[in-house]
Amino acid sequence: MIAGQTQGQARYPFDIWYVAGWSDELKVSERIARTFLDLPVVLFRTAGGEVSALEDRCCHRSMPLSAGVVDGEILRCSYHGLEYATNGRCTRIPSQDKIPPSARVRSFPLVEKDALLWIWMGDAALADPMKIPGHNYHSDAEWAWRSAHYPVKGNWQLLIDNLMDLSHLPYIHPNTIGGNPELHFKTKTEASRLESGVRVQRHMPASVPPPTYVAAKGFTGLVDRWQEIEFELSILRIHTGGCDVGTGAYDGQRAHGLAMVGFHGITPESDKTTHYFWSMATNVLDNDIPDLVFEQTARTFKEDQDVLELQQQRMEAFPDAPIIDIASDVGGRMARQFIRKLLIAEQNGNAAEPQAIAT
Amino acid sequence: MIAGQTQGQARYPFDIWYVAGWSDELKVSERIARTFLDLPVVLFRTAGGEVSALEDRCCHRSMPLSAGVVDGEILRCSYHGLEYATNGRCTRIPSQDKIPPSARVRSFPLVEKDALLWIWMGDAALADPMKIPGHNYHSDAEWAWRSAHYPVKGNWQLLIDNLMDLSHLPYIHPNTIGGNPELHFKTKTEASRLESGVRVQRHMPASVPPPTYVAAKGFTGLVDRWQEIEFELSILRIHTGGCDVGTGAYDGQRAHGLAMVGFHGITPESDKTTHYFWSMATNVLDNDIPDLVFEQTARTFKEDQDVLELQQQRMEAFPDAPIIDIASDVGGRMARQFIRKLLIAEQNGNAAEPQAIAT
Amino acid sequence: MIAGQTQGQARYPFDIWYVAGWSDELKVSERIARTFLDLPVVLFRTAGGEVSALEDRCCHRSMPLSAGVVDGEILRCSYHGLEYATNGRCTRIPSQDKIPPSARVRSFPLVEKDALLWIWMGDAALADPMKIPGHNYHSDAEWAWRSAHYPVKGNWQLLIDNLMDLSHLPYIHPNTIGGNPELHFKTKTEASRLESGVRVQRHMPASVPPPTYVAAKGFTGLVDRWQEIEFELSILRIHTGGCDVGTGAYDGQRAHGLAMVGFHGITPESDKTTHYFWSMATNVLDNDIPDLVFEQTARTFKEDQDVLELQQQRMEAFPDAPIIDIASDVGGRMARQFIRKLLIAEQNGNAAEPQAIAT
Repeated sequence: MIAGQTQGQARYPFDIWYVAGWSDELKVSERIARTFLDLPVVLFRTAGGEVSALEDRCCHRSMPLSAGVVDGEILRCSYHGLEYATNGRCTRIPSQDKIPPSARVRSFPLVEKDALLWIWMGDAALADPMKIPGHNYHSDAEWAWRSAHYPVKGNWQLLIDNLMDLSHLPYIHPNTIGGNPELHFKTKTEASRLESGVRVQRHMPASVPPPTYVAAKGFTGLVDRWQEIEFELSILRIHTGGCDVGTGAYDGQRAHGLAMVGFHGITPESDKTTHYFWSMATNVLDNDIPDLVFEQTARTFKEDQDVLELQQQRMEAFPDAPIIDIASDVGGRMARQFIRKLLIAEQNGNAAEPQAIAT
Repeated sequence: MIAGQTQGQARYPFDIWYVAGWSDELKVSERIARTFLDLPVVLFRTAGGEVSALEDRCCHRSMPLSAGVVDGEILRCSYHGLEYATNGRCTRIPSQDKIPPSARVRSFPLVEKDALLWIWMGDAALADPMKIPGHNYHSDAEWAWRSAHYPVKGNWQLLIDNLMDLSHLPYIHPNTIGGNPELHFKTKTEASRLESGVRVQRHMPASVPPPTYVAAKGFTGLVDRWQEIEFELSILRIHTGGCDVGTGAYDGQRAHGLAMVGFHGITPESDKTTHYFWSMATNVLDNDIPDLVFEQTARTFKEDQDVLELQQQRMEAFPDAPIIDIASDVGGRMARQFIRKLLIAEQNGNAAEPQAIAT
Repeated sequence: MIAGQTQGQARYPFDIWYVAGWSDELKVSERIARTFLDLPVVLFRTAGGEVSALEDRCCHRSMPLSAGVVDGEILRCSYHGLEYATNGRCTRIPSQDKIPPSARVRSFPLVEKDALLWIWMGDAALADPMKIPGHNYHSDAEWAWRSAHYPVKGNWQLLIDNLMDLSHLPYIHPNTIGGNPELHFKTKTEASRLESGVRVQRHMPASVPPPTYVAAKGFTGLVDRWQEIEFELSILRIHTGGCDVGTGAYDGQRAHGLAMVGFHGITPESDKTTHYFWSMATNVLDNDIPDLVFEQTARTFKEDQDVLELQQQRMEAFPDAPIIDIASDVGGRMARQFIRKLLIAEQNGNAAEPQAIAT
């Protein structure tokens, strides 16, 4: 049992990599206070560029270390000047010469990869950086991308449900990426279980492109449209886009159309609130199209935030109400099963399951 | 035991009719979110005019149905488009053809009568519309009335106490309906137990009329004044007014004086908050007097809201402190006994007690 | 066990005198609502000047008495006009002639001394005014003083820790009373246990005076500086100041230098919030120096409030985290031991320990 986990039903998987932030959020010699899985954490980057994640409390009198300052390679508490190295050990106590071994705080494995900061909140001995989900779109010159960090007032699993079932698009997002409801009703959702997660696919051949697609690519006729979702526990990748009808979209020839890849890092802050780190990459690089795609996506995702907040309120008001699944939940149901299995394995003390390595 | 009721001491009677709102609050093709007895409810009126009260959560993923839209005779969830009939059954799931029987939400009996919406939060099998308390002043051309809905930050029983003991008038409402404290001290409160509730009467013959009375009717001398209160569990009617001395007020000849009838619908929202639906009817119809009476009453009732909020805070701070009754509580004490008896009967699983039928 | 005390570990000493306010806060015929040790209290001063502290709820329907008015020698409830004498007995119920003996509220011993109001929240039989800590600087013409009342969003013991370990000065208060960090590191903290509390002393001979000292006294060279702290459970006195080097500061000859005496009354409001009543007295009376010293101190103490609020948040997030002591905590540790011993004695039903009598 890891600190922060409640008795009984575990509320989060601990032994997986979570997104802690965007690399460019954490400047040199700066620090950020952020709570993950109920635990307050301070992220900081030293003058030399090293990143660190520590429990956000001084071991002396619980002053938040995030109220302190980074000075060279250490983080100094603002109250009585205790200094901490990146590994959480106290390296200086101004009023005394000896530093007792107990003068330290917990540190969490923190790794930078693909423009993201990845944190491991569970048993540090199990933290294998090779298991960090990859997202090389963030370093591929063929793609342009923009990123954001949204605070979500809802449970993390509601956000996964939201992203795994895109049949909500015509209802919640009619003005951007939604499009015609009838089209969505008739589209079959195919879901398959992968070793590292779940894959969902919806193809809409010869369909009317939604407003954002037309704005970005200037389609004048029907398009072969795709929605392909990869769920890997703490992240999802969502491939969407369209090509002129019959030009090879379903054979992988998509470069001539509008292709978008969404990255969705979902990190529980608490049982009721979630960090949502997302980016949107597109293959159309000219004429401010990446900005246009990002702005319309950002508006769209704000609409989802409102939904999740309302759902959370009702789930708290009706804690024992059953939830029923509908046909389009096929992927979301598989994701919930995948999570449940992992939670049970962690509670029984089993080692971490394999997590995906690369895109 | 009904859902929403806590273990141990029941906090509200469930098997009675409560006021859910004013009829004119619920427009055609509109919906209102409101919580009664801890349960979030959506009220809606179809295009055809039918009214319905449903549990305010979609059976799929707990999205509040009140965030949806009324379309013809159904209420459509805003998230994935599930549609609900007025009886709570799901009638359409866009992504599938079959509707499972479990796809439904609880519906509550909802009846329009006397310009009010009446809801039954308990066992629907016991809901007899004949037992809805009547208030025909709302449809009598001899009377003019205005209505309001106040959110009260206090327990519902505090509001009943407040209305059953009008000896607080000179202290809380000296500038409107209060009048001389000494007058109130000397006035005897007579209370009697009725089958359907409690009746309280205070007569103040040959007394100085309070400011609102003078403003409304232009009294120049003393008046025979009356306060007659009928408590019927979820509502009270309060008859007040005055006539020139010796002109028959106590023999029922009041049409020539100033007569007012207050309707007070008291519906618990939670243990700590209450819906207060009230109206004020008067027999003086000319010269904007109904507006004047309403405005002074509204100001007066706002003063009461402040009192109830302060009481609630103290009752929470001193949860075990005893409450003592004073002489003027004779009616309020009977009302509390009446409620207590009903709560015990409901907990023991007995059928609903008779509720008043008409004025 | 006293009302308001939780089961298990007691959270506050009850059988000691606490500061309830400044005398000049409580005007003639006025009342103040304030919560001490989780109990809402109304303080009032009669027309004749007598002060009283009562439970802040009417015994009738729990209306806060602090919403009422002082009329002559009584406090009248604003709801139904019940009147209370300074001893908590109800002396009038407008609607009835007899006053039952149960019509009363708890009263707390309240004493004025040294410009302060002192309250006893525990067993009134043990309340000995001779045990009220003294502070005659408030009535000595050689000293000028100013006072304040700060609401602190932190546990009371955090404030004691803060005041008992002044090694935080260079970190939190570099711009006012802090001064050079290196000076503070090298200064030895000497602590000693007294019968009535704890004494801490730090002497900094031949040191550079901090900004406030220079502003107040115009020092041009080094000073012999002192910090002497007296902890007496609910209050602390902190003597600070400096004299030109070698002019007798450590032999008690301080009148020619800058001498300051801080009074710190620390009264728990709840487990998480604290009343902080403080004054600052100085022996430099001319040129608005008392105002300058007060203003700089006020700014300094505001900085401490921010620290305490942040600590409180972290202690709630990590309720089981251990706290480690550092060398400069020698006095604070003694104070915590002193408090712990008293809490255990109170829980075991022993009589109150002696509390200090005078400065």
